[in-house]
Amino acid sequence: MGFDTLRWNNGVLELLDQTKLPDHVVYVACNDSHDVIRAIRTMVVRGAPAIGVAAAYGVALAAKELAGEANSVAFNDALATACDEVSQARPTAVNLAWAVNRMREVHRANSAGGPHAVAESLLREAIQMHRRDVESNEAIGRHGAALVPRAARILTHCNAGALATAGFGTALGVIRAAFSVDPSITVIADETRPLLQGARLTAWELIADGIPTTLITDNMSGFLMAKGEIDLVVVGADRVAANGDVANKIGTYMVAVLAARHRIPFYVACPWSTVDMATARGDEIVVEERSPDEVMGFGSTKWAPRGVGVRNPAFDVTPAELVTALITDRGIVRHPSRETLSILAQRD
Amino acid sequence: MGFDTLRWNNGVLELLDQTKLPDHVVYVACNDSHDVIRAIRTMVVRGAPAIGVAAAYGVALAAKELAGEANSVAFNDALATACDEVSQARPTAVNLAWAVNRMREVHRANSAGGPHAVAESLLREAIQMHRRDVESNEAIGRHGAALVPRAARILTHCNAGALATAGFGTALGVIRAAFSVDPSITVIADETRPLLQGARLTAWELIADGIPTTLITDNMSGFLMAKGEIDLVVVGADRVAANGDVANKIGTYMVAVLAARHRIPFYVACPWSTVDMATARGDEIVVEERSPDEVMGFGSTKWAPRGVGVRNPAFDVTPAELVTALITDRGIVRHPSRETLSILAQRD
Repeated sequence: MGFDTLRWNNGVLELLDQTKLPDHVVYVACNDSHDVIRAIRTMVVRGAPAIGVAAAYGVALAAKELAGEANSVAFNDALATACDEVSQARPTAVNLAWAVNRMREVHRANSAGGPHAVAESLLREAIQMHRRDVESNEAIGRHGAALVPRAARILTHCNAGALATAGFGTALGVIRAAFSVDPSITVIADETRPLLQGARLTAWELIADGIPTTLITDNMSGFLMAKGEIDLVVVGADRVAANGDVANKIGTYMVAVLAARHRIPFYVACPWSTVDMATARGDEIVVEERSPDEVMGFGSTKWAPRGVGVRNPAFDVTPAELVTALITDRGIVRHPSRETLSILAQRD
Repeated sequence: MGFDTLRWNNGVLELLDQTKLPDHVVYVACNDSHDVIRAIRTMVVRGAPAIGVAAAYGVALAAKELAGEANSVAFNDALATACDEVSQARPTAVNLAWAVNRMREVHRANSAGGPHAVAESLLREAIQMHRRDVESNEAIGRHGAALVPRAARILTHCNAGALATAGFGTALGVIRAAFSVDPSITVIADETRPLLQGARLTAWELIADGIPTTLITDNMSGFLMAKGEIDLVVVGADRVAANGDVANKIGTYMVAVLAARHRIPFYVACPWSTVDMATARGDEIVVEERSPDEVMGFGSTKWAPRGVGVRNPAFDVTPAELVTALITDRGIVRHPSRETLSILAQRD
């Protein structure tokens, strides 16, 4: 790939600043956990898996700094505080909490060895988490690439890419893997209002990798499908319910409905960890509404009149019946349902 | 209504400057045909019917100016030149050419009376064209309002409003007429990328009239339909084919497909003059692609990376099977088809 979302470089975590894309490719150096917290808070790094791995490095950086300064008791207390701080960098990020909890376990398991041993084991864990996320995406890519026909014109929505993960991406991992064996595939990217992750991030990262990409607004995919110019759709997922319903970025549902009308395969690519067998159906998922400012314009540019109401749901739910297959690191689940998902779930 | 799209005021055509909305409500005074041409060219006035009426006033202004200065022969020549100039203000606007041709006919029919008589008859014609367009929209509104249930939550796309016509609007005419008898109706407006006519114009003109309006991005209407928060859809049309297929602003087709899935009535409101019995089916209509710049950002703000391809179809075609009814000034056509449309066509 032509860039790293995050990289560990000689004791420093370097994060590609996603707030500056696509105009500037700049890395932010994080020397301690406070730098990492700031980067997560200001969305220098975004995407649930990427945030989780950045948080793990943040805890490792805190441990390294504290190990040089304190006795074991003070070290343990200070590290616990650092973990709390990192885990609160963004309130509702599930992967963030999960990653920090994993680091707390490693801390506990190694605390008998003293601060330096703990710091070393935490850094090893962060590096492993980073590597595992990339491997999981590469597995998704491998499985998914087999579903992509020759010279396919692939529609994707939002950014389920290397920029949202520790590297390679989920939906874009499938595209990368397919492109590596068939350079005649092309991508159509929805711009993905209101935050424009498709225009700003997906288009940028695919072009950076030399994959031909065409940008459209969110209301154009139906036109292209009707013209026979889209062969398959692949998107990521925020959460998959036990019955196969998929919560993902707002607009995913409309794309899925149009794909079904035109008999175009609609694939959802995500690590198995995104499948939540504790959520029975998609309609149990509470949809967060974000700030009206995002819909009134973009950034500092506002174009809507004062006095208008705004709705801004962050994601929607696509019913399982519209999903041709789920592409996970554990393999492909065709026609996801409680029955088909239960089989893979038992591999835990 | 709280504003005029265009108004004839003491020998001056005043146009609401739509390029300044919604931030500023400013009228541009047109004292001669060159002012009108400039206003059409720079999109101070837009929307096919509004352009047509503005062009008619432009010809009337030219005739008035020329009548004071020249003999009959010179007047006729100069006025013919002015008609040519006005008709070329925008190359592909059908209503513009139609309106100027109508003015040429009036010129011919009255030329025996001399320059002053011609100028007077042309002004009368422009005023009548203006009044007839508003009356046509009011008839559309009257017919359409009968289809709107109590407290309906109505989705509309783009701007088929007073701002696109000489006043009142087509789709928004239906909404205005319904609101006048039931102030509990509410509107959801798609922002309508790339040019954001929904956010900038529809939201502005409905709020100006006190009609409660909620703005969403184009990828959110499916979510609201799935939640049961939309009761009907009404949009305008650029052209209706003889079989009932509807060409309208890009994104209309996706809304129609989602409405059908959720069994929500999908209405198209337009004057009968928009029905083109010479076009057999929607797939005969050539879809114009506009500048990539519009999709790369908005106005001077650009957010897409260099090197990305862009598609920018200006409109799409909604097949007749998805249209619950066509609402015209001649009446309502349920399930539009060659058969049902032929009946109204015979009223010519």
